[in-house]
Amino acid sequence: MINAAGREIPESIPGLKKVVPYAGPFTLIPQNRMAGPRLSVNLPKSDKLLTSIDQALDAVGLKDGMTISFHHHFRNGDYLLNSVVEAIARRKLKGITLAPSSLTDVNQAIIPFIEAGVITAIETSGARGALGRLITDGRLARPVIIRSHGGRARAIECDDLHIDVAFIGAPCCDCYGNINGTEGKSACGSLGYAMVDAAYADKVVAITDNLAPHPIFPVSIPQTQVDYIVEVASIGDPKGIASGALRISKDPRELLIAEFAARVIEYSGYFRDGYSLQLGSGGAALATAKFIREKMLARSITASFGVGGVTAPFVGMLEEGLIKTVFDTQDFDIVSIESLKKNPNHLEISASYYANPHSRGPIVNNLDFVILSATEIDVNFNVNVITDSNGVLMGASGGHCDTAAGAAVSIVVAPLLRGRLPMVRDRVHTIITPGETVDVVVTERGIAVNPQRRDLLDCLKSAKLPLMSIEELQKIAYDLAGKPEPVEVTDEIVAVVEYRDGSVLDVIRKPR
Amino acid sequence: MINAAGREIPESIPGLKKVVPYAGPFTLIPQNRMAGPRLSVNLPKSDKLLTSIDQALDAVGLKDGMTISFHHHFRNGDYLLNSVVEAIARRKLKGITLAPSSLTDVNQAIIPFIEAGVITAIETSGARGALGRLITDGRLARPVIIRSHGGRARAIECDDLHIDVAFIGAPCCDCYGNINGTEGKSACGSLGYAMVDAAYADKVVAITDNLAPHPIFPVSIPQTQVDYIVEVASIGDPKGIASGALRISKDPRELLIAEFAARVIEYSGYFRDGYSLQLGSGGAALATAKFIREKMLARSITASFGVGGVTAPFVGMLEEGLIKTVFDTQDFDIVSIESLKKNPNHLEISASYYANPHSRGPIVNNLDFVILSATEIDVNFNVNVITDSNGVLMGASGGHCDTAAGAAVSIVVAPLLRGRLPMVRDRVHTIITPGETVDVVVTERGIAVNPQRRDLLDCLKSAKLPLMSIEELQKIAYDLAGKPEPVEVTDEIVAVVEYRDGSVLDVIRKPR
Repeated sequence: MINAAGREIPESIPGLKKVVPYAGPFTLIPQNRMAGPRLSVNLPKSDKLLTSIDQALDAVGLKDGMTISFHHHFRNGDYLLNSVVEAIARRKLKGITLAPSSLTDVNQAIIPFIEAGVITAIETSGARGALGRLITDGRLARPVIIRSHGGRARAIECDDLHIDVAFIGAPCCDCYGNINGTEGKSACGSLGYAMVDAAYADKVVAITDNLAPHPIFPVSIPQTQVDYIVEVASIGDPKGIASGALRISKDPRELLIAEFAARVIEYSGYFRDGYSLQLGSGGAALATAKFIREKMLARSITASFGVGGVTAPFVGMLEEGLIKTVFDTQDFDIVSIESLKKNPNHLEISASYYANPHSRGPIVNNLDFVILSATEIDVNFNVNVITDSNGVLMGASGGHCDTAAGAAVSIVVAPLLRGRLPMVRDRVHTIITPGETVDVVVTERGIAVNPQRRDLLDCLKSAKLPLMSIEELQKIAYDLAGKPEPVEVTDEIVAVVEYRDGSVLDVIRKPR
Repeated sequence: MINAAGREIPESIPGLKKVVPYAGPFTLIPQNRMAGPRLSVNLPKSDKLLTSIDQALDAVGLKDGMTISFHHHFRNGDYLLNSVVEAIARRKLKGITLAPSSLTDVNQAIIPFIEAGVITAIETSGARGALGRLITDGRLARPVIIRSHGGRARAIECDDLHIDVAFIGAPCCDCYGNINGTEGKSACGSLGYAMVDAAYADKVVAITDNLAPHPIFPVSIPQTQVDYIVEVASIGDPKGIASGALRISKDPRELLIAEFAARVIEYSGYFRDGYSLQLGSGGAALATAKFIREKMLARSITASFGVGGVTAPFVGMLEEGLIKTVFDTQDFDIVSIESLKKNPNHLEISASYYANPHSRGPIVNNLDFVILSATEIDVNFNVNVITDSNGVLMGASGGHCDTAAGAAVSIVVAPLLRGRLPMVRDRVHTIITPGETVDVVVTERGIAVNPQRRDLLDCLKSAKLPLMSIEELQKIAYDLAGKPEPVEVTDEIVAVVEYRDGSVLDVIRKPR
């Protein structure tokens, strides 16, 4: 069948209870109820402390075929996922589904355990490097399920993704299981993704290198959700968890794109006191923050809130009073972690509060602007951020489609060419964000407004921006670099891209 | 059938899915799952604001036979419950179940609507005054279900108590439904009871007299749980919500009881650095705080946390550094509300985190001491706090049985006589807290330690306290005031006392 994004979707896909084709960003209205977490009992003064990950695997009764989850707040500094998978492999367990909030390069250490059949399925936001290539090669027993941050929260909360055991990396954990992420040598800041896992998993194991006397505060994950606690020497490498200094773009093309994006915001009609925004963590998005800040100062405009993955420029604007509140699911640098710890206007939120579409309204619903990156954009404004020009998995869904759907104005920034490859083209290889939720595409050569946003186009006419149609942008790209060859694929589906509502937006097929 | 507390319980009781007789404080291990809240969708930029309670009743589709909930943080200053019930009555709806976290004197305004059949059932913590008498008279269609604070959280979370519509009194609410209780003219402090309702009710209506721009922070109840918002002129009378000045007991008998209780704590073996405690809000409990404080200063001991209904003496000890953290489900005075607002060590918690026994461990599990009041205690250490000497409902279950079960040392304080009535007797009229969870009974004439706590008895021998058996205490009382006549009752059951785990601990029968 062909879904509303024009993609051919099979009637059934291994690992999905039911294939619901994507039918538009807000068409799927859930009729039933959320999942009920497991009821449990913990007697007064009972001891949750275990001495090793092995003991925890015994305690939770981990068995062949179960689903385990992790959170990716430790990014490339993460020790947890690899060491738990190793411990599972030592027990010769098979057929485990791995459901981390995302995978990073450091996780390629688990490849031998995928090859050995310990891990046979993955449900996550994305993967890159050797893991991405392995997935694209179809080396798992069933297609990987790719979900956005909001989609993952939704899937967990309604039991589409049932987690048997959640492993929570806990930078600070007291001896009865209250957890926060801002204290300790492995501080990572917000635990926004892990909060959902802890609330819904059948068993929850906290692993900490900073066991504190009861009670700690603030509490990000409460003792009422934690079954067991394991103390280890180290849960992560601080150098990999958070970057110290921020990369400020000096690339003139990136700066030009950022300047255009800032001008789109300025003239959009939504740039007024109390507006709200999300910036990505890419170079152009961060550079946009610099230009937006100047425009806010010039016009004496303050933002009611910013949301995201938080970086130092956002924190700077919070501290200057230019942004009133920052909502935080994840921190990218030390400045942001410190800010979450000390600034009461900097609020930790769960991935569900951030973006779960099946609630009474996540915070992305309140966004005026989001700046998003892209690896490819097509003439229908569909955006790819997950596969490269060879059709290989090398990115993550993240909050891309969530914020695009929620924001009043979603702005995708990308260079028109990367090397000799046009970034605006007839058709993207993989759709992560459907075009009907993308309002503006900004490149260094021109800016295209989605025709369904005539209101925006009218506002931008006075902005002295190189406005053109998306087809014109594509033509410039093709004229410069030639028409790109589509990636030839086999029939084998290696990954499924779920839209945030659980419908199937696209599938990734094994390249030929 | 006779339950483990020795009470005769019928095989079935209208309004209870199943009658499970009480079998001991930790015997009932839940095997299934929690309830799943209703899935819902709220489109970006959609408007949750309604102009009246009537419009909200339309929007939620309130119908005959539904269950509605409220929270009692506004105590005798509450305008909300009465005005919503009045609005429901104007629609001539019938057979509504009222499920507030508790009822206060001000709620007797709803009596005409009970008589008219608008409200036909009540599930709550307790009632007093005219409402208590009406319930005791059997004027509702089915027995009132009495639950503790922890038991109510459990019942909501596992769908024993299914709330169709929760009405949340919101001292501060932004226009997308984020709520806190510390700001605005009707500030009540913690919204600990309401948090559970908002998380599980099918529909959630926030009613506020302080509508703020989005987003507010801190957030006690998130926008993801709120369907509609109604702005009204006033949700409560500040004078009734919180008391300004605290009553310091000058009653010599109360002071003597408090001094004994403090000495029990001091010599119990659990009074050491890092201990934890809950104090009730009664006169003797508050006076105990004064003596405990002196002993802490004398011995250079600090408490890791205090929990409760929070009052000024607790806040004072927090500010002095004698208590490291205060966990707060409810604030009784202005000092406590202000403290919650400004002190990061003063933490708002839900009733579930406080005391739900069917979780991985509520905070009551970590308590060393709780001081509790009583209207009657029997020779099996069973405690009544809910019916008076005529068998009439005049109190509330509150956190009594929750903290008694959780604390290492539960201390019940009561005068040996009230007027000419012995408080220690053969048999209490109603059991709210089973004797096997009560460790020490403190009266002005003597102190009885539960024989199952030989460890405590040994510790207390050096404390120069008038230790005696509970039978000796009872004999002194009977010798002074005579053997009290038991309340003669009919067969008609007017209320059911659920233990915190959902089993039936006792029933209240209509007096003859």
